[in-house]
Amino acid sequence: MKELRERIEADGHVLGEGVLKVDSFVTHQVDPVLMEQIGRVFAKVFAEAKITKVVTIEASGIAPALYAAQYLQVPMVFARKSKSLTMNEELLTAEVYSFTKQVTSTISISRKFLSAEDNVLIVDDFLANGQAAKGLIELCRQAGAHVEGIGIVIEKSFQDGRELLEAMGLKVVSLARIKSLSEGKVEFLEEDA
Amino acid sequence: MKELRERIEADGHVLGEGVLKVDSFVTHQVDPVLMEQIGRVFAKVFAEAKITKVVTIEASGIAPALYAAQYLQVPMVFARKSKSLTMNEELLTAEVYSFTKQVTSTISISRKFLSAEDNVLIVDDFLANGQAAKGLIELCRQAGAHVEGIGIVIEKSFQDGRELLEAMGLKVVSLARIKSLSEGKVEFLEEDA
Repeated sequence: MKELRERIEADGHVLGEGVLKVDSFVTHQVDPVLMEQIGRVFAKVFAEAKITKVVTIEASGIAPALYAAQYLQVPMVFARKSKSLTMNEELLTAEVYSFTKQVTSTISISRKFLSAEDNVLIVDDFLANGQAAKGLIELCRQAGAHVEGIGIVIEKSFQDGRELLEAMGLKVVSLARIKSLSEGKVEFLEEDA
Repeated sequence: MKELRERIEADGHVLGEGVLKVDSFVTHQVDPVLMEQIGRVFAKVFAEAKITKVVTIEASGIAPALYAAQYLQVPMVFARKSKSLTMNEELLTAEVYSFTKQVTSTISISRKFLSAEDNVLIVDDFLANGQAAKGLIELCRQAGAHVEGIGIVIEKSFQDGRELLEAMGLKVVSLARIKSLSEGKVEFLEEDA
């Protein structure tokens, strides 16, 4: 997606090898205009797929997932990152390991919002090693739901998340694919949409 | 807002005295169509106010704040709830006490996303005792930003949040105002918009 690539070049910050900061338009301050465009693209790619729910994880996945859901005319559900499991047994839960923070956290979705009738599009802001997406897929599978595909805003193609998801037989659609983040510069691969 | 009131009546669940669960369309599963309508109403009410930023708090404030920001044509910024303060000094931080959880947490926004030039609309999904909104106001004031008003999706009018905010001289616009949640029934006051 050209507008996204240009925005990353203009406003993204490369912080050392492998770290891209996009907190002025994706992860902290959010540009609704760009997010709407992103949501439209995801909805267009999956228009014929009979998606019934868009699933994401709080907090920065919510904006792109919301617009994708709007244009697909389905509800959006966001998984919660809960450190303590104070909630009741009506939850789907999965463990997600964060390589950056080196902690395992539990993510959860209420069982009532995913079922075997669902055909899910997972949306997230970043794909790096794929652990968050893997956790979301796990929640969907526990509910018997089918995962139709994964929509990613920014893929770090130099990490192995995409391979992991494709090895699971899943369609991955990334709107920006980053080949490298060396010497303060962003190099892109050709994106999926 | 008539559509919101009707939706609360249809899909909200009163869980004991004072607790309203709207997790099927606001706080966990999110209805983008309703959220877009809500965002439009906030944008209309504050159309002449020269808002420069919409500020909310993760996670369930993000959806209504995003659409309000879209229709006001400004960026949205969400405060993070951080339990540990591992981040650097470039943060605005405030303490928020949760009466329900009986814990104090720290919320934060990067200093670079709020300035003395900003005229802020705060948006949140719930207003009960006003502690979250008070924390967001505190972050804005630390940045020297002006808070123009507070847009609330669901106000629990039987708690004292609105009084607290109005006593600070702030305009509060609530799209549903709940008078009581007794015996499993929702009683409304007339809403602001």
